[in-house]
Amino acid sequence: MIYKTPSYQKIYVLGAGAVGCYFGGMLARAGHEVAFIARPDRAGALNSLGLEMDCKAFHETIQVKASSDLSALKDADLVLLSVKSLDTEGTLTQIKSVLPNKAVILSLQNGVANIDIATNIITNPIYAAVVYVAAGMIGQRTMKHHGRGELLVGSLGSTSPTDDGNLEEICKLFEGASVPCSIAPEIKRDMWLKFLVNCSFNAISGIGQISYGEMVKSPGIVKMIEEITKEFLAIARLEDVKISVSEALAANDSIATTMATQVSSTAQDLAKGKMTEIDFLNGYIVELGKRYGVQTPYNQSVHALVKMMESKIK
Amino acid sequence: MIYKTPSYQKIYVLGAGAVGCYFGGMLARAGHEVAFIARPDRAGALNSLGLEMDCKAFHETIQVKASSDLSALKDADLVLLSVKSLDTEGTLTQIKSVLPNKAVILSLQNGVANIDIATNIITNPIYAAVVYVAAGMIGQRTMKHHGRGELLVGSLGSTSPTDDGNLEEICKLFEGASVPCSIAPEIKRDMWLKFLVNCSFNAISGIGQISYGEMVKSPGIVKMIEEITKEFLAIARLEDVKISVSEALAANDSIATTMATQVSSTAQDLAKGKMTEIDFLNGYIVELGKRYGVQTPYNQSVHALVKMMESKIK
Repeated sequence: MIYKTPSYQKIYVLGAGAVGCYFGGMLARAGHEVAFIARPDRAGALNSLGLEMDCKAFHETIQVKASSDLSALKDADLVLLSVKSLDTEGTLTQIKSVLPNKAVILSLQNGVANIDIATNIITNPIYAAVVYVAAGMIGQRTMKHHGRGELLVGSLGSTSPTDDGNLEEICKLFEGASVPCSIAPEIKRDMWLKFLVNCSFNAISGIGQISYGEMVKSPGIVKMIEEITKEFLAIARLEDVKISVSEALAANDSIATTMATQVSSTAQDLAKGKMTEIDFLNGYIVELGKRYGVQTPYNQSVHALVKMMESKIK
Repeated sequence: MIYKTPSYQKIYVLGAGAVGCYFGGMLARAGHEVAFIARPDRAGALNSLGLEMDCKAFHETIQVKASSDLSALKDADLVLLSVKSLDTEGTLTQIKSVLPNKAVILSLQNGVANIDIATNIITNPIYAAVVYVAAGMIGQRTMKHHGRGELLVGSLGSTSPTDDGNLEEICKLFEGASVPCSIAPEIKRDMWLKFLVNCSFNAISGIGQISYGEMVKSPGIVKMIEEITKEFLAIARLEDVKISVSEALAANDSIATTMATQVSSTAQDLAKGKMTEIDFLNGYIVELGKRYGVQTPYNQSVHALVKMMESKIK
């Protein structure tokens, strides 16, 4: 097999939240040509004042290009897809006619539905990244990094074209920019393991505006997380993802201890009066449960409560 | 059967929350000798400034006696028990040695566990009241009345001594003070119907700090209330309480429409940083579910979440 070596001259970050700003910012800091596509207020701030990266290892302002104009993507070589899951369909539909065929897409998003959504809209090579980073935006142009910052990348096989060296190239790109990045032999499983942790913690942290460490001090919440996990694993098995109970509980425990002071992105969204990704987290488990005829009362409860709290915002 | 006619010269209100202040206040306003037992700050305010009753029909300040000294109960003829359910055991244990045998107890409390708790501690005649009133305290001595204000009273039979005219006397007392009051032939059923509505609405309103009318605009919440109700009815049947599904759903619907702008006492407690009665509402259903081996995932979820929110207070 002959590998072509894509060069990714023009890199775009589609969705300039904390995840897009961290990984896009690291590439820009390493000298790559990175442009951010964001809402007008954020794009304006990034363009005029630069991206402030308040990281564990450094604190720098990086000059970057930013725009709200989706047609800018016409010369894209690599697109880091980092919009919220609920914007995937709308955004890709809008850029479909602009995006060059050669452009490689790397989804840095939460949940497990985005790649399927994307491949129904565009035919570009698309890869999944499982993102491990704790970061948040403070204001329009400042990304605050709380810890970690690595990527696992892979191809979902049936849903993406055969990998022709892109994954190796992506890893090289990030590794050269001080972002640990490796190819996962079973990316779907890694996505579901991260998805599990999101289902276990995001909604409850959001409902209570409470950190992971505080949450699990309530015995009733520990039991609830276990039940959410059992429902999740039943659905995962039906989706051909094999995760053992002990592995699942270990993944949950690890979050509660290593990220004890963190609140979830769902909590942050609700606090900011923004819509959450809950339909792509516990809501997706509820949806799959209906499809498979599997009861998911605990996931249904936290999903319904987060939807109710979103309804107070609108 | 010869009825003795108890005269209830000395009436005590044990627990001066909104319910105690409304019904005790109505009796005091009608000229009865009513004393309130309350925490020091509330007792002090009631004693020195009187009970301000901001009611739908009138706005008056009633001079009342109030004290924090439980030994005052030594001359009690009638005690309106209106402490929170979580204080029933502790309070009755404290007054056990002081309370005269003749004193009649009327529980105005939420939930269905209080009479059992009380009869395990004291041997006095004790009756249940199902309270229909919307009211809240504003500050230490002002009771704001939003609507209704009637009582259903009855004897739980197996758990209380034979009624010897006390219920008739209690009704006469309240009716003479402009409080509609009637004897319920099946008080246990009425208690469980009110308990159902509390289980359906209190926790969710508390979790979301949201009114009953707003809550039920979320389709997921409507489904959740249905599931909480199904679990509740399964437990009720095991407790020999027969409530049909249609009757239960009608009771829920009625609250959502007639009290649309109201938030629950659970919501009020959480907002004030106080412990709630949740262990005696959904928590009691969870407890009975464990005893009977019946799954109660929806009640368990809302109970666990309210306990978590209480844990943020402590």
